[in-house]
Amino acid sequence: MLDRYSRDVVRRLWSDAHRYDIWLEIELAACRAMEARGRVPAGTTDTVTARACGRLDAPRILAIEATTRHDVIAFLTHVEEVAGEAARWLHYGMTSSDVLDAALAIQLRDAGHVILAGVDALRAALRRRAEEHRGTPVIGRSHGIHAEPTSLGLVFASFHAETGRARRRLVAAIDAISVGKIAGAVGTYGNGDPVVEAEALAAVGLRPETVATQVVARDRHAEYFGALALVGAAIERIALTIRHWQRTEVGEAEEAFGQGQKGSSAMPHKKNPILSENLCGLSRMLRSYAQAALEDVALWHERDISHSSVERMIGPDATTLCDFMLARATGLVDGLVVHPERCRENLERTRGLVFSEGVMLRLVEAGLPRQHAYELVQKSALRAHAGEGTLRALLAEDPEVTARLDARALDEVFDLQHHLRHTEVILARCFAEDAR
Amino acid sequence: MLDRYSRDVVRRLWSDAHRYDIWLEIELAACRAMEARGRVPAGTTDTVTARACGRLDAPRILAIEATTRHDVIAFLTHVEEVAGEAARWLHYGMTSSDVLDAALAIQLRDAGHVILAGVDALRAALRRRAEEHRGTPVIGRSHGIHAEPTSLGLVFASFHAETGRARRRLVAAIDAISVGKIAGAVGTYGNGDPVVEAEALAAVGLRPETVATQVVARDRHAEYFGALALVGAAIERIALTIRHWQRTEVGEAEEAFGQGQKGSSAMPHKKNPILSENLCGLSRMLRSYAQAALEDVALWHERDISHSSVERMIGPDATTLCDFMLARATGLVDGLVVHPERCRENLERTRGLVFSEGVMLRLVEAGLPRQHAYELVQKSALRAHAGEGTLRALLAEDPEVTARLDARALDEVFDLQHHLRHTEVILARCFAEDAR
Amino acid sequence: MLDRYSRDVVRRLWSDAHRYDIWLEIELAACRAMEARGRVPAGTTDTVTARACGRLDAPRILAIEATTRHDVIAFLTHVEEVAGEAARWLHYGMTSSDVLDAALAIQLRDAGHVILAGVDALRAALRRRAEEHRGTPVIGRSHGIHAEPTSLGLVFASFHAETGRARRRLVAAIDAISVGKIAGAVGTYGNGDPVVEAEALAAVGLRPETVATQVVARDRHAEYFGALALVGAAIERIALTIRHWQRTEVGEAEEAFGQGQKGSSAMPHKKNPILSENLCGLSRMLRSYAQAALEDVALWHERDISHSSVERMIGPDATTLCDFMLARATGLVDGLVVHPERCRENLERTRGLVFSEGVMLRLVEAGLPRQHAYELVQKSALRAHAGEGTLRALLAEDPEVTARLDARALDEVFDLQHHLRHTEVILARCFAEDAR
Amino acid sequence: MLDRYSRDVVRRLWSDAHRYDIWLEIELAACRAMEARGRVPAGTTDTVTARACGRLDAPRILAIEATTRHDVIAFLTHVEEVAGEAARWLHYGMTSSDVLDAALAIQLRDAGHVILAGVDALRAALRRRAEEHRGTPVIGRSHGIHAEPTSLGLVFASFHAETGRARRRLVAAIDAISVGKIAGAVGTYGNGDPVVEAEALAAVGLRPETVATQVVARDRHAEYFGALALVGAAIERIALTIRHWQRTEVGEAEEAFGQGQKGSSAMPHKKNPILSENLCGLSRMLRSYAQAALEDVALWHERDISHSSVERMIGPDATTLCDFMLARATGLVDGLVVHPERCRENLERTRGLVFSEGVMLRLVEAGLPRQHAYELVQKSALRAHAGEGTLRALLAEDPEVTARLDARALDEVFDLQHHLRHTEVILARCFAEDAR
Repeated sequence: MLDRYSRDVVRRLWSDAHRYDIWLEIELAACRAMEARGRVPAGTTDTVTARACGRLDAPRILAIEATTRHDVIAFLTHVEEVAGEAARWLHYGMTSSDVLDAALAIQLRDAGHVILAGVDALRAALRRRAEEHRGTPVIGRSHGIHAEPTSLGLVFASFHAETGRARRRLVAAIDAISVGKIAGAVGTYGNGDPVVEAEALAAVGLRPETVATQVVARDRHAEYFGALALVGAAIERIALTIRHWQRTEVGEAEEAFGQGQKGSSAMPHKKNPILSENLCGLSRMLRSYAQAALEDVALWHERDISHSSVERMIGPDATTLCDFMLARATGLVDGLVVHPERCRENLERTRGLVFSEGVMLRLVEAGLPRQHAYELVQKSALRAHAGEGTLRALLAEDPEVTARLDARALDEVFDLQHHLRHTEVILARCFAEDAR
Repeated sequence: MLDRYSRDVVRRLWSDAHRYDIWLEIELAACRAMEARGRVPAGTTDTVTARACGRLDAPRILAIEATTRHDVIAFLTHVEEVAGEAARWLHYGMTSSDVLDAALAIQLRDAGHVILAGVDALRAALRRRAEEHRGTPVIGRSHGIHAEPTSLGLVFASFHAETGRARRRLVAAIDAISVGKIAGAVGTYGNGDPVVEAEALAAVGLRPETVATQVVARDRHAEYFGALALVGAAIERIALTIRHWQRTEVGEAEEAFGQGQKGSSAMPHKKNPILSENLCGLSRMLRSYAQAALEDVALWHERDISHSSVERMIGPDATTLCDFMLARATGLVDGLVVHPERCRENLERTRGLVFSEGVMLRLVEAGLPRQHAYELVQKSALRAHAGEGTLRALLAEDPEVTARLDARALDEVFDLQHHLRHTEVILARCFAEDAR
Repeated sequence: MLDRYSRDVVRRLWSDAHRYDIWLEIELAACRAMEARGRVPAGTTDTVTARACGRLDAPRILAIEATTRHDVIAFLTHVEEVAGEAARWLHYGMTSSDVLDAALAIQLRDAGHVILAGVDALRAALRRRAEEHRGTPVIGRSHGIHAEPTSLGLVFASFHAETGRARRRLVAAIDAISVGKIAGAVGTYGNGDPVVEAEALAAVGLRPETVATQVVARDRHAEYFGALALVGAAIERIALTIRHWQRTEVGEAEEAFGQGQKGSSAMPHKKNPILSENLCGLSRMLRSYAQAALEDVALWHERDISHSSVERMIGPDATTLCDFMLARATGLVDGLVVHPERCRENLERTRGLVFSEGVMLRLVEAGLPRQHAYELVQKSALRAHAGEGTLRALLAEDPEVTARLDARALDEVFDLQHHLRHTEVILARCFAEDAR
Repeated sequence: MLDRYSRDVVRRLWSDAHRYDIWLEIELAACRAMEARGRVPAGTTDTVTARACGRLDAPRILAIEATTRHDVIAFLTHVEEVAGEAARWLHYGMTSSDVLDAALAIQLRDAGHVILAGVDALRAALRRRAEEHRGTPVIGRSHGIHAEPTSLGLVFASFHAETGRARRRLVAAIDAISVGKIAGAVGTYGNGDPVVEAEALAAVGLRPETVATQVVARDRHAEYFGALALVGAAIERIALTIRHWQRTEVGEAEEAFGQGQKGSSAMPHKKNPILSENLCGLSRMLRSYAQAALEDVALWHERDISHSSVERMIGPDATTLCDFMLARATGLVDGLVVHPERCRENLERTRGLVFSEGVMLRLVEAGLPRQHAYELVQKSALRAHAGEGTLRALLAEDPEVTARLDARALDEVFDLQHHLRHTEVILARCFAEDAR
């Protein structure tokens, strides 16, 4: 977790102090549930709450852990130091994983909600830009080669739709991860009680694991990190597109340039899409974390602890990165400087060839066999390609064409507005998904 | 796609012949929708259907492709050979990806349904074994070390729950992939019509892509292959557990041994968990395919074709493998030979130490400070560990213990039935999820 | 292994028939070594060789395996069918892995040599193009933005150098994989003999594993598939560059277009870099196979068989793909159509701004403080950027500049030849690595 | 980079302060080389060295970067603050990557050397244990099932051999990464000089990149992180074996237990192989980092900066983890508590069945057809398996056997020493590799 690539709100979720607070919250919730059932002396929970909440000393706990080499025992020892005798009833009949897994679930869930908000912000920006540029024509490219015109608004809308799917997966993954277990050493409640578990977990906003082992099943975590990787991939596609747009030869859009920012120490004209490139790199990290999480699923028997070191790394790293990426991507989309005149210029670069399919189809509709129509269009197309004029003008000189298509028909084929006539239908379909 | 690791039903979905049949189905659906709108001469669809359906010659199409080097054009050429003149109206105003992406969606969806059935079969087997062994005690292990007793039924139930989650993800992924587009070269319907698309896709059981480019967005495919990887990981956990059970020193269960099968050319006693090992290996393949699919998401602009070669490999490979793995895992679970006597033997191997936590908790409940109770139990535990007797017997000799716990109390702590008293609650919770 | 993405020479290495031939070769080599030591009756090897070599019937062996469910036993059974009684001495005191691992090593080694030849062919093509275009200026781009001029020859040379490193790793990996073991069930030669092993393996061109278990260690295979992934990544970089070059707006080079090939059914001008895109996709597959191979390393104890299914998939898939990719990449590089005039056009697109750093450095050398020099250049640069003239012309009008740099000095800064004066040194350094 | 999973010596290499020191070292080396050629005023390098070396203020540089948003410019600005006017000649004609890539190479190289020392320490420990246990018999297991006896020393030796190969790859990777470039914006030395580069890089222990772009080629880094992943996989295999050994039912060896360490808060007998499990988890991280590094290779044209964010994460993370893992693994191997009596007990668990192949081979050598010999052995084997006696005793009662094998012959087959007679040959072969 690099400061450079993380923001406070998620980073804080992974601080030692916050983790200990969550642990205490879970222990108190379990204690209260046991108290309600008479398994713990009445008043214990209130006493410990009053004395310990907000008063834990993280460095002190770490110092104790240096001796005990056991994180939860160190924590409980310190709670006793702070809250006194009553704290002895905490963790009664529980195993460390009862606390650890619930805490991790809370951290991942809470980070997930921040990330969801980030997705929403990004989607709002994408929608704004889609609406702003619904009528901005730009050449559509397949294979990096000019194909047919599209609208810049549709490009943003396609990102909006994709991030919507990323959101849907993340919502499912947050739900999947919002699970804990207070079911003892091997998940049987040998010294515990499913009712205590249900009450305690509900108090911290979690559900009980369906069938726990010593731990919550790790396919839940793999789903979660997989969902983050797909948020990353959606951002990567946006960033990659911006990098292409900003290429010197394309120049259709570029990253906003900060006041006083220097692109190059020597070349005053140079503005690099560094934010987008950065996002492409970081999406690789999210992919790699998802891979490690997948390897964590198949633990031995009722658990082995191999997943733990992985989660200590990727829990903070993946969530802070994903949050950071969303914030960066949102700023990027919001600030993106679009150059409609360059879009137009590029559109016209092929002298109308991008409308050739439309001409051909009209000729077929006018009765020509397809192969004949193809050859007819190709004749003018090759001349246009060779620089002898626009396709529109060359076709208008060809009597074989004009015999079938009059000027108005040709106008329509070469009319961008006509070509993009379904834009609003697509946008409506796209944004309708939000409403649901 | 190796014959060895695939089954007919999914393999067939990826045959050339089947692919061409799907293409034809899509082309005809689009043609019919256009016909309904007067864009194609009336009767065209019926004519082509009558002449071409069930009569395509796959090798012939491949031969044409060797010349044209374009798969869809080769296909259309052949359809014309078979259906004559009318076939010229097929593919009218469409782009190759309109056909290809819808076809891939159908293949992945159909393979997905076969896989879902495979998940269900596996889950049925797991449930049967869970119910059969609900009362079979087995030592629960954390870190590979004996912890506390559990029930074999709970182990199967935990697999049942995990495969249930894998199923839920797969259902979502099949839904996500059930999308096509007939929206032209860059997704704008420049020469097309959203209504035609909607009708044609509905006819083949797909929805229109929200905002298409030249292709359907590839995050959908990445989700799908990610879901398969998690089916694989669930199987891996089952297989890994069986491998552990079958270890010579553990011997709690073993793979059924085929009639006449030879474990080793030399060692007649040797039975190896080869099916389980095989499944562990194959789950690595599913993980690796998911990684490749994630890299496919960020295509250039309105599409580049880099995803295509990946999908040609992992489409068939991942789905056939996953189907094969499910069938193999189901057979494995169904046929698994359980040795309850070895389970019991292993349970008793530590002379009751696995109940030590229970004793300690009872002593605390009886009024001892926790640390004192711990030391009291530890004293007998170390003697039991050293082979001086069972923990139960040694505790019964300790007046400090007997002063607080009478024989009945001790009996309860050492009573497996008591320890596993919540089994039914857990199983009920597990199977209730199916009902929803 | 798709026909579409593989070539005969490597595919053949993985045929059933070829595998059985290798098995026989290994068995005979071991038999001969045992015979030399009197452990097998004299003449056995010659007899079996005469009767069985070249006469095995692969389908027959597969049919036997369907019953025995053990591949090596099925093979040996068939060899007895063909060679009679003497064949009973084959495999004497050996374990299946003795045959299987040596055979896999031979297949990977032989495939490796074909791939090495493919790397060499690609490197030869890259060198030819580097030499052909040593003097072809092209704009160098960082971040996709014009930076400073470079030579097209250098771009090819950088690919040449990278594939040279890929070659070095592959040579090391082939050496690492060229290892077998005939050391019995757990690698101790309990019923065998290190001398027999050494002789037999030498006869088939392998070395003995340093310390075998039942199998050869799998880090060797992981290294091998990792080396293939890096061959793939080197090809990916070439292919990615070509895709960029071929973009409509860039147009500096393009894939050769086959006679009669159709870029698009509608747009006669459209030529897509489909071979390069295909290679980018396939490189993802090689990456994913390397990941699976890494997971195969940590086997249980003296071996578990989880690696086997992975290797059955990635052995053929990775080697045939890599070979295919090299052939395709070589053709691509060889046939690449370069447009030097477009390179030049693009170079001049920024009106000389790409030389701005050189001017600034000269001004500093002429005595100006760096910051002052920067601002001086920037002034003209911004005007050039705004289209008011070339940077060269605008600087020549600035008395502050001309007071320090005369026309000759300016000429030198703006002289491409001067800028590229070290090209030959770099090329010589690059090709010198081949000589070693 | 978690404190928990890293050690000072590598962590320090990645500190801000150390990075700035390396940058200064590189700038001064370049400055001195330019000075030697008269491109920079005489005395500049000495002056800056005297004033700045050891006196940079890292927080100050970071504060400047917060404004300039350019790390190298911030650094240079601060060097001027500290060293005054003369510092203006630093970085003359250089580009940021000239500094950054050389610095990264130095960090990776230096970390690599620490890691190499860690590999050597691990190998020394493995060799010690191999020699200590050269004569400790243990059952060899394939598929987790008892196969034939081996020596514990051979198991350690096989790890020793594997880590030797990991070392060889790491040495190659360190060599590959020990490369920098001072070749300007696109690698052409447009405003630079290959001779200056060669001298400057030599002064910091690097070689020039063969053909640079703006950066050093990233296949070098991918090789490096791939080599770390294979170090990790070698450790994983060791750790996995220890986890198996420590299983309750196996008990052949266990991790040393720290003074006062608590295995479980409740179960005093419980000792978990947590270090080994931890290492298995961390090896997954190294694998995932290698994957991200592979995706970094194919940069755009003369560079894009997408690799940078990846390297900022995995540079520190992978090297500190790998170093930490080696230290932990070395301590683990060194401290491993072996229980030879449990090894022996397990060996005898199958009542001699593990020698069955040897008996069969002797019977064949004594003239019996193989199938007959097999059945003969199987008869007694099945009885031994059923608990009717040891295989040795049962065979000695079978006249068909005793007619062919006398007591001495049987003794030899069942003699562990005989079975392990080649141990020394293998160990010698293993350690001979070190000498080279």
